[in-house]
Order: sequence, then structure tokens, then C-alpha cells
Amino acid sequence: MRIAVLGLGRIGLMHAGNIARHHTLALAGVHDLDRHVAVAAAETLSTQVYAHLEAVFADEDAEALLIATPTDTHADLIERAVECGKAVFCEKPVDLSLRRASACAAAVAGRGVPVQIGFNRRFDPGHRGAREALRAGEIGALHQVLITSRDPGLPPREYLMSAGGLLRDMTIHDFDLARFLLPSEPVEVYAVADALVDPALGKALGEVDSAMLILRTADGCMCHINNSRAAVYGYDQRVELLGDEGMLVSDNRRPHELRRYGARATGVAAPYLHFFIERYHDSFVAELEAFAQCVADSTEPEVGLNDGVAALRLAEAAYLSMRERRAVSVDEVELA
Amino acid sequence: MRIAVLGLGRIGLMHAGNIARHHTLALAGVHDLDRHVAVAAAETLSTQVYAHLEAVFADEDAEALLIATPTDTHADLIERAVECGKAVFCEKPVDLSLRRASACAAAVAGRGVPVQIGFNRRFDPGHRGAREALRAGEIGALHQVLITSRDPGLPPREYLMSAGGLLRDMTIHDFDLARFLLPSEPVEVYAVADALVDPALGKALGEVDSAMLILRTADGCMCHINNSRAAVYGYDQRVELLGDEGMLVSDNRRPHELRRYGARATGVAAPYLHFFIERYHDSFVAELEAFAQCVADSTEPEVGLNDGVAALRLAEAAYLSMRERRAVSVDEVELA
Amino acid sequence: MRIAVLGLGRIGLMHAGNIARHHTLALAGVHDLDRHVAVAAAETLSTQVYAHLEAVFADEDAEALLIATPTDTHADLIERAVECGKAVFCEKPVDLSLRRASACAAAVAGRGVPVQIGFNRRFDPGHRGAREALRAGEIGALHQVLITSRDPGLPPREYLMSAGGLLRDMTIHDFDLARFLLPSEPVEVYAVADALVDPALGKALGEVDSAMLILRTADGCMCHINNSRAAVYGYDQRVELLGDEGMLVSDNRRPHELRRYGARATGVAAPYLHFFIERYHDSFVAELEAFAQCVADSTEPEVGLNDGVAALRLAEAAYLSMRERRAVSVDEVELA
Amino acid sequence: MRIAVLGLGRIGLMHAGNIARHHTLALAGVHDLDRHVAVAAAETLSTQVYAHLEAVFADEDAEALLIATPTDTHADLIERAVECGKAVFCEKPVDLSLRRASACAAAVAGRGVPVQIGFNRRFDPGHRGAREALRAGEIGALHQVLITSRDPGLPPREYLMSAGGLLRDMTIHDFDLARFLLPSEPVEVYAVADALVDPALGKALGEVDSAMLILRTADGCMCHINNSRAAVYGYDQRVELLGDEGMLVSDNRRPHELRRYGARATGVAAPYLHFFIERYHDSFVAELEAFAQCVADSTEPEVGLNDGVAALRLAEAAYLSMRERRAVSVDEVELA
Repeated sequence: MRIAVLGLGRIGLMHAGNIARHHTLALAGVHDLDRHVAVAAAETLSTQVYAHLEAVFADEDAEALLIATPTDTHADLIERAVECGKAVFCEKPVDLSLRRASACAAAVAGRGVPVQIGFNRRFDPGHRGAREALRAGEIGALHQVLITSRDPGLPPREYLMSAGGLLRDMTIHDFDLARFLLPSEPVEVYAVADALVDPALGKALGEVDSAMLILRTADGCMCHINNSRAAVYGYDQRVELLGDEGMLVSDNRRPHELRRYGARATGVAAPYLHFFIERYHDSFVAELEAFAQCVADSTEPEVGLNDGVAALRLAEAAYLSMRERRAVSVDEVELA
Repeated sequence: MRIAVLGLGRIGLMHAGNIARHHTLALAGVHDLDRHVAVAAAETLSTQVYAHLEAVFADEDAEALLIATPTDTHADLIERAVECGKAVFCEKPVDLSLRRASACAAAVAGRGVPVQIGFNRRFDPGHRGAREALRAGEIGALHQVLITSRDPGLPPREYLMSAGGLLRDMTIHDFDLARFLLPSEPVEVYAVADALVDPALGKALGEVDSAMLILRTADGCMCHINNSRAAVYGYDQRVELLGDEGMLVSDNRRPHELRRYGARATGVAAPYLHFFIERYHDSFVAELEAFAQCVADSTEPEVGLNDGVAALRLAEAAYLSMRERRAVSVDEVELA
Repeated sequence: MRIAVLGLGRIGLMHAGNIARHHTLALAGVHDLDRHVAVAAAETLSTQVYAHLEAVFADEDAEALLIATPTDTHADLIERAVECGKAVFCEKPVDLSLRRASACAAAVAGRGVPVQIGFNRRFDPGHRGAREALRAGEIGALHQVLITSRDPGLPPREYLMSAGGLLRDMTIHDFDLARFLLPSEPVEVYAVADALVDPALGKALGEVDSAMLILRTADGCMCHINNSRAAVYGYDQRVELLGDEGMLVSDNRRPHELRRYGARATGVAAPYLHFFIERYHDSFVAELEAFAQCVADSTEPEVGLNDGVAALRLAEAAYLSMRERRAVSVDEVELA
Repeated sequence: MRIAVLGLGRIGLMHAGNIARHHTLALAGVHDLDRHVAVAAAETLSTQVYAHLEAVFADEDAEALLIATPTDTHADLIERAVECGKAVFCEKPVDLSLRRASACAAAVAGRGVPVQIGFNRRFDPGHRGAREALRAGEIGALHQVLITSRDPGLPPREYLMSAGGLLRDMTIHDFDLARFLLPSEPVEVYAVADALVDPALGKALGEVDSAMLILRTADGCMCHINNSRAAVYGYDQRVELLGDEGMLVSDNRRPHELRRYGARATGVAAPYLHFFIERYHDSFVAELEAFAQCVADSTEPEVGLNDGVAALRLAEAAYLSMRERRAVSVDEVELA
């Protein structure tokens, strides 16, 4: 399958490289508003540069588009691509506006064109293995989920200014992971958050960098999420499932297992895989493979636009909870 | 130091044994309403049986009392002991009524007689080591605390009927641990709880067996607690501290480190230390030693009646939060 | 059962304390050539001091003797005790002379008096669990054994001068452990050793501090032992068993499981249990309980004089191998 | 750099794929005696098929050759390639005959053409990290090395018939790793080996499947190697270094870190990375990068023909030791 990549920032470049190196996928071409960036990438990856966006939609060789452009262009590009009959893989979030995301989902529903959202953590071998073991009954009925999701350091101020807020930008992955793991939809959200890492920046931007949440399903299943923008010891990504017959833990990974035992200290020598590109490399490849399979089989992606909308709705519920210091029912948050 | 033990249930017997085997502590005698129990224990431990409670208070040889009787007798016994000038080590909780506990604390305040409450987890080498490392600045400023505290199985129905509810009986240890670890007092509590392990029993008793909480201090420090009555994989007691310069984790322990690597499975052979008597053995001994030191030095115990009251107040705030599905300020809960 | 303790050095005091604190064992009394040491110990442990050795043998209250005197007195004391009909628990080694040890074993054979040698590592819960799993067939047929046994630091020069050499003093525990774990007797030994930790001391004393060995059974089962007097990172005691259906590893233990995750380092905070008294505490108690059981049941101890002789014979074979740089058949070493 | 790959068995195909996917290396073409295999590989990897060997040597576009043909062709191909001025990366072993390997090394010495031998384990991030930490003085002076190297299962009978014997085929990697880690050359070898996994096959082929060795340097540094063809729990590759100031351990890796905690068992869910292609993926890429760097810089490869000869000499010494049941000095084994 040939895929065109739109947007060549950090994650767009990563996807383009994964496609180029894959033994069954291929790059149809790349596009970026910064032509220098596009030319450099095309050279490295031995592919063509599209002169403009319309050239992408017109390229009959490109069966699918991978959208890694700025968030505020996602919904428009998805709609345009679906009109052109091109399968879409779009990075999260669909849009920072729940209403716009929801309208986009409505617009492309029933068109028979696969649209997959880049919630890659579902495809992480450890997290996915946990869910498979859960579904296979290995820990009985699920009672509690704990998701620890901490970035290794504050992103640049510019990033924060347009990211849409911690819960829409970072926690949104955890909302999707919670929905992936829980046996039914979360119906209630409670959230606290604060600017503990950089209070001054938090004040300046009206932004938070640390959060704790509790979600609940209608069956009483509980889910705790904790986030921090600055786990100085490394990118910390853990999932824990407690059931009435056992527990499953998907823990962090390291690039090798060298340990040091000295007179004063004993420890591992290798830090965690540093950030999402390394930590979730396997899942980034696996989500592309799953997408290609859906396109080949003309089936619905496992994680589609409605999942993007649902995660965003949880984020909105969480923001409401933060403001009102109370549990918020998810259906208090209107979609349109 | 000679200590008389009142109440010879599971935990009273354990304390009596720890005292008898200790190289600087000694048993002054034991008492239990069930005389057969008392006689059997006294024989095993080579000590005397007190004929009645007054004989305990009258025993000039007994410098201190260890109270492990039913909860509803604690406050009265504490007050009586202090009147007699005897130092007191009392099992938690002080009382199921916050008002009564608070009154007891007021009644004995300023009497110069040490009263220590049995919040033993503060004395666990791992948990205490975490706090010491925190206080020594090893992880910088504290942002998040996670306490996992799960029992290995439901206690008998009779126990549950008089225990006062999950949050007063079990979570109370975690409230104290949170106060021990946090840099300032929690000022806000949010709690959800449910009867997930045994819904029928929960309904019959109006009791819950699973809970998740979030506490906050005035500085924005966040603390998550999760509880379950039934972690079938073993008594699960973990503490995690996230600071802006690192993380500390006090993890579970096993009696030995045998591991099995087979064609189909790889794992540890020894389960966690099964329950509190094994898991917290070191802390049960250490809290007695700290108590004896206070008595010897005529100093205030590290964990006194006011700590018992404060933990109970958090439990009351948590129950209010559960009912009203909102964050509750601790000062909404009146002490008297 | 009442046990008299002879010899109150480090290990004798430890045994005496274990007996005094045990709920079914009791101290009959203690003896040491240094009367001050004996008096101090007796006071701490609330027992009597024997005025002289004959008083021990004459004490009808003492059913058993625990011999922790200098090695060159062991064989005589064992023989005398057996003559008196007193069960014996004797610290290793039986004697530094294989001939004397062998003669002692012959002298007391068939007398119906239990004599147990203090090869305590057999009773370590992890090592024993490994053997039980092996015998239960969990890893199929045994192919390889690896024993890592390293002390945390060089003992005093005085100790080394009378200890009899690394292989007779320290490796002897590993020889016994090898015999405990292997399905049949080792028939061949190869050993290399050197003074790597302190070459000057090694030269002065003609002693080594580091060794590697390979033993073989008649069935081809292989066993590697490595020793060092100076593992600065802690007392390192590991056993690994490879079978055709899996592997078993009995690893080191720590007093608690605090871990630190910092920006520059991640590691455990607690060192290994420091030395044999802490690391093998459980096994020291368990071997006494096993001994008491044998006395009660009038059965042969699991680890008797012949085991002491067999381990010593392996040490002699190892010394011969070292000198001649070749594999030595155990039956090259004559017992008498 | 453009590299031609000769021989497209399991490891040749792996190397060809690694080259094709690498961002700075490229495939010049492939060759295999089985033309169907070559055509299929060329199609997958988008490269050309060489019609015959001479076409490889004549291809001016191919700066370097990667030789992954049967062992008995290695030395001839190396010599021919060097004559043509083409850099060579050759899989181990150079030859099963020490004399032939040695002659090949002599023949190409001083020709200024880089020849690297595929001892990839030196490039494993964990093993290499251990050596770097050692060289940086983190554990002081080295006393002991332990190398555990066990395959997950017996290879096919056909493979065994031509592999040259366990010590030349499998242990040779460990001999090279020992030389890589030890501060000076091993001067003495002792080896025991047996057919424990499949005695019947061993008897039929005169081959062994399990081994233990001890090497020594002139300074007394000791190195233990253990091998098995059948670690059913997974490909087991560990290195341990003991120095007078600490210990370094490079342990096994897993594809993810999912763990299961059940009522009866607790363990990891993911087996070790299964076999050399997965376990040593990073090292296979890193050795190619190091090779390319040498070619670019016209420097000597870190691991050249002389290292191939030295490892083979240790294998010969080990076979002599096995036969004669004694320590063998490496210089007893003549090179020519």
C-alpha cells in the first residue's frame, strides 16, 4: 500500500520513515508547508515531494493519507480526503473543539472510507497484551485500572501555547487507553490538576502540568490516571489492571539490561526508552500495519473518528470537573 | 520496659509475642475478656494473667499498656490509663466516632503521658526509607504520592459488621501514611468506592470493598490511594513518590527470591509476604521500640492521638465525598 | 528441647540467641573458655553459665549440645558428647584434617545419637525451594548447577591464619550445597584459585581469596562454583539450576524494596542482607528446628558427619587440582 | 556505502535486510548458489542478483562484501576479495581449521583492506556498556567474568553435522566475548562437555551439547563460560563482571514488560527475545555501522581476522583440555 504523508514535523517524519522502511508499505510522497523540510525528507526517504495539497488528493497512486499536520487542519483534511475516497490515518487529536471533531465524524460516517486515529498506545505489545489477557479471563472481572503517563520534561513554551491544554493534548492518550482497557464506557470523571512543575509558566499560560483523575464506568469499575510533564527519571508509561482473579502490569522498557552493583549503589545503567518515538516504536509500526489491513480488507479501523471524539469528550468532562471540584457525568458534556 | 497487653486477638497476640521475644522489652502480663485465651497466651509467653482490668492499672510493674481490645473500648481505656500515669500504645482506630476520638485526645492532652497510636506502616523500613530520602531532598519537591493498599481477601462477615466501614478500618492506615509522606496536611478529599468484590455482601451490610481516592494539600500536592479487600495475588502494599527531581518506590517483599523459568512460563516462586503480620513484621517491632524510647525519654510519640483523630477526619471527609460525588474540604468535617 | 551452647564467638552467640527466642527450644546453658564472655551472654539470654566443660556433659537437663568452638576441638567434643548420649549439632567443618574428620565419623557411627553438621544453606527457603522444585520435576533432568558465593569483604588476618584455607573454610559450604542439589555425587573436581583481592596478604599467608571450580557427576551433570572474599556490593549468594525443562534461580534478598529513580541513576536503595547472620537467618533457625525434630524422632539428621566428611574430601580434591592443574577424581583422595 | 551480500541463508538474509533498511548503507546486490533464493531476496529488497561470483568481484559499485556463505568458503572468499581491494565483513568462524584461518590472516595482513569478522556480541549495547563501564574503572580491577550462553533448542541434525562442533560453532562467540572483556589474553583453558540434551544424537555425531569452561589470564583473572544447546525457557545470554569495586551484569531482554500476578503464579508474560536475530538485532546493525566507519576512515576493524584466529585457537585448546582432562596452555596449540 502506498501512503502519502502530510506534515513533516517530528511525528510526521517518524511515520514517513516507518512507512519507507516497512517491507509491505511504501511512501507515495510527502508534503509540508515548509518546502525545504519536504525536499530534505523526500531525499532521505527516496520519495517525491508534492508541490501542493491538491497534488496529494489528485495522486491516484496514493491509496491513503497520513495526516500529521497542525491540529486545526485535521478535520478539514479528513473530510477532503474522504471525499476523494482516500483512506485516512490522522494523528490525534481530531480537533481541539469537541463540536468540530464531532461534526467531522458525522460528515464522514457511512462513507465506507477507513479513517483511523493515531491512538498508538493501544498497539503497544505490553499494553495490548494486558488487554488480551484481560479479555481471555486471566484476571477475572476487572475492578481497577491504573494508568501512569508522565513525560520526561516540559515541551517548549510554543508547543504548550497551541497544544490545547494538558488534558486534551497528553491525557487524551490515557483517556483512549482507559476506554481500550475498561469493559464499558466511562460515565463519570473527576480531575484535579495543577502547575507543579513550572508554576510561573502555568500562570502565564493558564496551563497545568500535573494531574490526577478518577473515571468510573456504570458497573463501578474504577480507573485512575496520573500525569506529569516532567518525570526527570524518564518517560514513564505504565498500565495496571486489577481483577478479582489477579493483576496485570505493563511496565516500562529499557534499551538494554545492564546493571551496576557498587559499594554504595546498585542500579540499572540504562534509562527508560526516552520518549514516545523510542518507547512506542513498536506500536507506531503496528498501528500502521493495522490500518493497512483495514484498507486492504475494507473494514472499520479498530480506533476511528468516534474514538477520537469520545476521548475528547472525556477531556471536556475533566476540565469541567476541575473547575467545579466535583464528579462530572460524561453525558453532561454535549457533543454538538 | 515492662508492658501489659490488653486484648489477645490476632494483633494483641502478635504484639505480646514481639514484646516477649524482644531483647530490651518485657511482658508485664496479659489480659483478655476470654480467660482461656489469656491463660493459654500467658503460658506460651511465660507471663502472668491479670484477673481483671483493675489489676492491670494497679500493677506498678507495668510501665505501659498495649491496648488491642475491641475499638469501642479504646478511648475509655486510654483515658483511664493516662489517669493512672501509664504510657499507652493503642491500636488504631482510636474510635469509630470522630467526636469521641477527638474528645479523648482533648482529655489526655498536656498530661505528659505518652500515647502512641498503632499506625505501624510509618515504621516499615521501605516506606520510612522513602520518606527519609524525600526529606533529604533526593527527589526534590514532592508532586504526587500513590499508595496502593490491597488486602489479600475479604475478612469474615462478622469482622466487617463491626469494623466501621472500609475507609475507617482499612484506608485509615493509608490516610496516616499520606499524612506521613505529604509535606503538608491534606485539605481536600475525593473518594469513590463500591462493592466490586462481593456485591451481595456489600448490599447486605451497606459496605464497600474497593475504593479510589484523591487527596490534595494546600500547595497542590496530589495523593492517590487505591484499596481492595481482595487482591488474590497477595497482600499488596506499595508507595510511590514523584518529585521534580526523581521518584521513590517502596515495593512489596517476598520471603525468598526463587524464580522459575520454564518453556511456558517464567516467574517468581514465592508469593508476597502474605498479610500484615508477616509483611509489616519489622514495622510492628520498630513501632514498639520507638514507643519504648519515648517513654524512656519522656517525649511525645511520633504518632499520637491527634494523628489518630486526623486520619479519622479524612475518613469522614471521604465518606461525605462518596455520598455527594464532589471534592470535600477537610475543614467541612467538624471535630466536635 | 534444651540445648547447651559451647563456644560463644559470633556464630555461637547467634545460635544461642536463636535458641533463646525460639518458642519450642530452650537454652540449657552456655560455656566459653573466656568466662567474661560466657557470663555476659548468660545474662542477656537469661540462662546459666557452665563452670567447665565437664559440667556440660554432666548436665542431665541438656539433651543436646551445640558446638561452636574452634574447629580443632570439634571432633573430640563430638565423640565425647556421643559417649554421653547427647545429641550434637556441630558447626562446620568437622576438622581441617580429612583423616581426623573421617575417624570421628567412624567413631560415632551406629551409636544412635543424632549428630548434625551446620551446613545451614541447605535450609535456606530459596535454595531449598529450588531443590524441591527440582525433585518435583519442574525443570526435568538437571544438566548444570551454578553456585555464586562471595563474601562482602576479607576477614581479619587472624581469622585467615587459622581458617584452613579458602576451599576448606568458605567453599566447603558450596561443596555441601552442590551435593545437596546434584542428583548424584560429584566424582571429579577442577579448581583454580588466586589471591586477587589482596595479593600481598595472599603471598604472606600462602592463601587465596578468589576461586572458580567445576565439579562433575558420573552422569555428566556439571556444577560451577565461584568464590570471592570481597564482593564490595554485598554478600552474594545465588544458586542456579538448569534442567532440560527449565531453570531455577534462588537469588539474593534485601531487607526492603525501596528503589530510587533519578535523572542520572536508577537503583535499589537497600543493599543485600549484609552477611551470613542476616542473609541466612531463616536457615539458621530452620536447621535447629530440623535438628530438634531428629532428636525428638530419633532419626538421622539430613546432614550428618558423613556429609561433613564428603565436603572436606571435595576440598582436598580441589586443592590437588589447583596444584596439578588438572581434573582430579574424588576417589584419588583417600579418607584414611 | 554499497555492500554486496554473498550467501542468503538465515544470517545472510538478515544482514541484507539490515543493510537495505539502513539510512546510510545500501545493497549493491546479492548472490547465492541457489538462484531462486537470490531472485526472491533481490525482489523483496529491491536490489540486483549477481549472475555468478565473479560478477560480484567485478562490480565496481560494490565497495564491500558481506560473506555469509558456508564456512569452508570463507577463507578463499576473503583472500579473493582482498585481492580485488574490496573491504570484507565475514561471518564467523573464519574456517574450522585453525591452520587455514591462520594462513588466511597472514595472507591478507598488511594489505590495507579492512576485514571484519562477525563477532556481533561485542556490539550488543548491554555487553558493550559493561565493557565501557569496566574500562572507565567503575568496578575497579577485574577478577572474574561469567558468561552464560545458551541456545533455546537443538539445531537440525544437518546443521550439527557441518558446524564443526559446539566449541568451534557456538562457544566461539563466548571466546571472543571473553577476549573482549578480559584485560589481557586468556593463557589457559579448561573445558568439560557432554551430550546431556540429546545423548543419542551426541553419540551418533560424536558431538556435545552442554559445556562448562574456565579460562585464565596471566594475571590470574578467571572467566567461566557455560553453554547449552537447549535452554527451553529461551535464548539466554548474560555477562557478569566482578571487580574489586563492584559488579556489572548485562542481562537478557524481553520484547515488552507485561507481568501477571495470579492467585497461584506471578510472572512475566513475555519470553526472552527468542533467538540471535531478535536478541542481537541492535548489535548486528551496530557491527555493520562500525564496519562502514572503518571502510570510510581506512582504519582497522575492531574485530579482525586475528580475532577470528584467536577465538579458534581457544576452541582448539578447549578440545584438547576435554580430551586430556587438564588445563591446557593456549600456546600448546600451534597456529601453523
